[in-house]
Amino acid sequence: MADEALFQFLHSELIQYIYKSGANGETENGKNITKLEAMGFRVGQGLIERFTKETPRFKDELDVMKFICKDFLTCLFKKQIDNLRTNHQGIYVLQDNSFRLLSQLSAGKQYLEHAPKYLAFTCGLVRGGLSDLGLKSVVTAEVAGMPACKFQVMIQKA
Amino acid sequence: MADEALFQFLHSELIQYIYKSGANGETENGKNITKLEAMGFRVGQGLIERFTKETPRFKDELDVMKFICKDFLTCLFKKQIDNLRTNHQGIYVLQDNSFRLLSQLSAGKQYLEHAPKYLAFTCGLVRGGLSDLGLKSVVTAEVAGMPACKFQVMIQKA
Repeated sequence: MADEALFQFLHSELIQYIYKSGANGETENGKNITKLEAMGFRVGQGLIERFTKETPRFKDELDVMKFICKDFLTCLFKKQIDNLRTNHQGIYVLQDNSFRLLSQLSAGKQYLEHAPKYLAFTCGLVRGGLSDLGLKSVVTAEVAGMPACKFQVMIQKA
Repeated sequence: MADEALFQFLHSELIQYIYKSGANGETENGKNITKLEAMGFRVGQGLIERFTKETPRFKDELDVMKFICKDFLTCLFKKQIDNLRTNHQGIYVLQDNSFRLLSQLSAGKQYLEHAPKYLAFTCGLVRGGLSDLGLKSVVTAEVAGMPACKFQVMIQKA
């Protein structure tokens, strides 16, 4: 319990630090999101290397995505995502009805504008993991009402 | 496994970010250490609140220290410290022969100068935890050869 909380608290501290140390405003907000995403990317790359040490080779793109959504994210957040859908053309939607890093914030719409900063790191995490498994992607997140959220993964064809 | 690594990687990213975003030099180094320690302090405070929710009341100072060293740190780092000594006058020395956050760095003396930044957050963590349990303290860390390290806790009498 406390060890998950350790990550969650550090994650909040990081967000606060990044937002405090920079200036404010629309452009700055975008830059901060990019920084968080880049950190997530590097962490995702590091993690996936350890994580796949004893994993058999993946069959195809869907197999990789299933691994990322089921094994990787479940282990990191100690919780399965609720739904994974795909159009079979490189777009995947991961639905989580109660995302760990949002569950500490008030539910509903009150703090909706703050949601993106709590999701950027995780977007990077997924992108970094996929990148190390050979899939270039764009990962975005969308929140309609906390603590539920949707991650959309668009695989970039080579 | 990967969930501990998640914290470790994020911790390294945070250090790199703090050191990259500020200027360099002796004074800056001190400021960065202080920032990391302050983050650890707040995280420690948050964690101890969750952690002691169902813990019986502590008898005395030694009891609190044992709790912090055995239960709290063991749960966070998934590893017991190797030795806890005290002079029974408010000074405690925690010895860890292979500290988790140093074990990713090369062993020996080569990167010894970088050790303090990898320990500041944990010093804060301990100080924050103790503070929420009613003990004001000064926590410092010392490394003679990685990955072993010693934390010294000085309890400040009211």
